[in-house]
Amino acid sequence: MNSVNVAGVGMTRFGRHMDRSHSDLALEAVSAALADAGCSIGDVQAVYFSCAMAGIITGQESVRGQIFLRPAGIGEIPVVNVENACASGATALHAAWMAMLSGMYDKVLVVGVEKLYHPDRSRTYAALAGAADVEQKPVVFMDLYAEWAKEYMAKTGATAADFARVVVKSRQQASGNPYAHFNEVTTVEKVLAAPVVSTPLTRPMCSPISDGAAACVLSTGNSHPGRVNLLAVALTSGSLSPTVPSSVVRAAKEAYARAGIGPEDVDVAEVHDAAAPAELHLYEDLGFCAPGGGVRMIRDGETALGGRLPVNPSGGLISRGHPVGATGVAQVVELTWQLRGQSGARQVEGARVAVCENNGGWQGQDNAAAVVTIMSR
Amino acid sequence: MNSVNVAGVGMTRFGRHMDRSHSDLALEAVSAALADAGCSIGDVQAVYFSCAMAGIITGQESVRGQIFLRPAGIGEIPVVNVENACASGATALHAAWMAMLSGMYDKVLVVGVEKLYHPDRSRTYAALAGAADVEQKPVVFMDLYAEWAKEYMAKTGATAADFARVVVKSRQQASGNPYAHFNEVTTVEKVLAAPVVSTPLTRPMCSPISDGAAACVLSTGNSHPGRVNLLAVALTSGSLSPTVPSSVVRAAKEAYARAGIGPEDVDVAEVHDAAAPAELHLYEDLGFCAPGGGVRMIRDGETALGGRLPVNPSGGLISRGHPVGATGVAQVVELTWQLRGQSGARQVEGARVAVCENNGGWQGQDNAAAVVTIMSR
Repeated sequence: MNSVNVAGVGMTRFGRHMDRSHSDLALEAVSAALADAGCSIGDVQAVYFSCAMAGIITGQESVRGQIFLRPAGIGEIPVVNVENACASGATALHAAWMAMLSGMYDKVLVVGVEKLYHPDRSRTYAALAGAADVEQKPVVFMDLYAEWAKEYMAKTGATAADFARVVVKSRQQASGNPYAHFNEVTTVEKVLAAPVVSTPLTRPMCSPISDGAAACVLSTGNSHPGRVNLLAVALTSGSLSPTVPSSVVRAAKEAYARAGIGPEDVDVAEVHDAAAPAELHLYEDLGFCAPGGGVRMIRDGETALGGRLPVNPSGGLISRGHPVGATGVAQVVELTWQLRGQSGARQVEGARVAVCENNGGWQGQDNAAAVVTIMSR
Repeated sequence: MNSVNVAGVGMTRFGRHMDRSHSDLALEAVSAALADAGCSIGDVQAVYFSCAMAGIITGQESVRGQIFLRPAGIGEIPVVNVENACASGATALHAAWMAMLSGMYDKVLVVGVEKLYHPDRSRTYAALAGAADVEQKPVVFMDLYAEWAKEYMAKTGATAADFARVVVKSRQQASGNPYAHFNEVTTVEKVLAAPVVSTPLTRPMCSPISDGAAACVLSTGNSHPGRVNLLAVALTSGSLSPTVPSSVVRAAKEAYARAGIGPEDVDVAEVHDAAAPAELHLYEDLGFCAPGGGVRMIRDGETALGGRLPVNPSGGLISRGHPVGATGVAQVVELTWQLRGQSGARQVEGARVAVCENNGGWQGQDNAAAVVTIMSR
């Protein structure tokens, strides 16, 4: 089997980019990734493109990659447009990884781009609602996270202050990330005193609406000096059965098995903290601690920079921002920088094995899709 | 490299299904494909799902496969939602084929489903417009085909009657296809006398708006008695450069090279006759005749059943119908039946090598995407 590398990465700063188009954001991320990989767009044999919300935001459906990458010089390069709600970026990575392993391609580009800001805010909400079953009661994702947070509090003894600690860590780490949407440090008190979105979640505990783009070049072979290894990309769907483990637990199990490592080998992780309490549960689902142990990990600072297993050094979704289709790709960008030792103030020293987890959509009782990716240097 | 087979296929009749949901249509196609492959949904390791228009038709974005396949028992099987406008179905096949070749999966399901009928017809038109750049002048696909037909007439001497001959052949062949939207035979005179959509195209020369679903099971290994070989699936994007060959020409060249065959080896083809004149040009792009030779082929009956190289025995898009995301998968369904000798009144006797061509979207001067697939028994 071919070994697959991440040969180059790039991204825009995430944030509110009302004056920039999808194309413009994509161009910046793609140009940076190509330059980083030391290749040109003409070297790319296929593009796996992730953009989940443009259909409802701008009316652009179906061939977003071809349209949005035109200024990047896409020319006649084949494009596969991939969607899986907030997990679209990692799903594009999954399809690209499979394509590389097939031996049919030896250089592909994975691009995620999203614009969620729209002068008509109802457009943004409609786009997000399209990530769950639109024939059921409309899903408000932060209400789901709030319900789930209450259950988690009852089960583990977690408090709203623990969720606030996730935010404090996130902002602290993002303060070293020039690509983050928010990077001012905060305190537990400030987070708890912020306006409530859905009890027990206050506004800073929720990932923001963001615009942005991220890209990475995958290649085979061992020649590129900046390469990191893409060991496994595992995709699952959420189960409707209460007796089946969660989509994340199953994806993690599959990814660890393929990569031939265990959670004890992981040095750094980027996880899908769409709301702060999710991060605690993800520590457990990814095997970083025993079930219910997430609370202790955040209280003890184990997942902060300098801790045993730093999580979301980028600031994660809460602080780096969450431009839906770009998020899963941005996680890979951050971890590539971490594994190369290029993350500056937020660097996890000596990181050799990295895990990222991206999930999206909603069906029944679980994410519609979850992806766990394992990388190493 | 693994060899990949089509182990089972199924589809709904294409047509106007106002009383049936996406889920209901998908369930029928998936159940038929699984039964045909002699397996159950639990044997499937991943689903590649194509649905290009539901975002604007129903608001369902992002995780259509997970939502629409719930009644089919999708459970926790991973789903990759794929889009490429009218080429979405074959693009899903392309991603699935790569996944099979990667060795990561040995049984995957490819599903295409679309509902285009909506009580508010403007919704249908908006969905179709989303397959071209929505920031440019809105694209009306039949106007593009009409413009292009006029150029083709000037270049080759083709007449409107030649386009009508394509329709007559299409309806004749579809008269033997119980899955076709339209299967009443017609005449050149009737086609020419029909209402004009965009000169020189009359209504029967244009593929209809349809609802429907199609599915196929891909597997590896040689054990399944009904299997046909999936030799190559080649995907390209349309070029913006006038000096680069068309997306279809490049996809065909790549597919023939991978399959190790040439157009002279082809016994039967399904092509993307979204409008009748396109079929003539596709004969040329696929190498079935020299440039400009399409007119002669239709006049001489070479592409009719009983001719040298029957094209669109199913009736093609014009008569079988064109539920966007399902079309590329339905082509594979038809050719599987043809290669097994199961096509009844429309059977191409002794067919051993089959080609299908699916294209979609629009950018500049060409399709946004084109896929050429080669199958054999």
